[in-house]
Amino acid sequence: MADKSSFSRPAGSADLEEGSALTPKFDADGLVTCVATDAASGEVLMVAHMNAEALAKTIATGEAWYYSRSRRVLWKKGETSGHVQRVVEMRVDCDQDAVWIKVEQVTAACHTGRRSCFYRAVPLGASAAESGSKLAAITLEFRGERVFDPNTAYRKD
Amino acid sequence: MADKSSFSRPAGSADLEEGSALTPKFDADGLVTCVATDAASGEVLMVAHMNAEALAKTIATGEAWYYSRSRRVLWKKGETSGHVQRVVEMRVDCDQDAVWIKVEQVTAACHTGRRSCFYRAVPLGASAAESGSKLAAITLEFRGERVFDPNTAYRKD
Repeated sequence: MADKSSFSRPAGSADLEEGSALTPKFDADGLVTCVATDAASGEVLMVAHMNAEALAKTIATGEAWYYSRSRRVLWKKGETSGHVQRVVEMRVDCDQDAVWIKVEQVTAACHTGRRSCFYRAVPLGASAAESGSKLAAITLEFRGERVFDPNTAYRKD
Repeated sequence: MADKSSFSRPAGSADLEEGSALTPKFDADGLVTCVATDAASGEVLMVAHMNAEALAKTIATGEAWYYSRSRRVLWKKGETSGHVQRVVEMRVDCDQDAVWIKVEQVTAACHTGRRSCFYRAVPLGASAAESGSKLAAITLEFRGERVFDPNTAYRKD
């Protein structure tokens, strides 16, 4: 089983940013952030986390694995629903605490049934922000249609 | 000054996911994750964090503000370098612990001088992952060219 020791430890800032070695900077919980985008449309599908094992499995298999912070388990995206993500390309950022994967998404990424988890827009501008004492007075605008019924497709992942 | 009390508190899962109120789910450090993509190309430019004040300022001004975990300060993207991000659209994800902003990026997003922070690709496949005892044996492939000299443009942000 891969763990943090499977990867070399991050070196100084210069090597981390300009080196060609993968030395992920896991946070205190042993995680890096992962952004998954649709390889065709560029749409951001989801933001999740990977521990060392999820990162190693994703690299080895070319399919996306994550670590659930709420359930505290490693999970393969789509293992229950079949909505897997085939990774077309993986990138790592300057300080190696985040990865970006471009994926071919089967059906949909979001457990609510939408293609992307980012199905609500936040209106911008001073009037939006100052329309009430609470910024929550801002009304989100729904953008994404459901493409499957989450009640029949699978348990939440 | 905006703080967490500027936003209503997250309600139950149903409201969080299907409601039209912005109720960000800040983590234990008071932060949400923010992904910034290029509004024109769809490229992921950077992943960073926002506290309540950064989120409120971004919404109010239409320019990206973040919270630096390492420096522990609120910062406006480009305040030193001039490399600001004009926000074209903001989205929030299903559980409201991440936002996605589509931005018009002046010059470049990365302090290393590249357009995107994700300027290195991670090779995929079993051979890459098993080529050595360390996954760090994987050799990153550089993709992004520098578009400015970080030594003259500004201090690191």
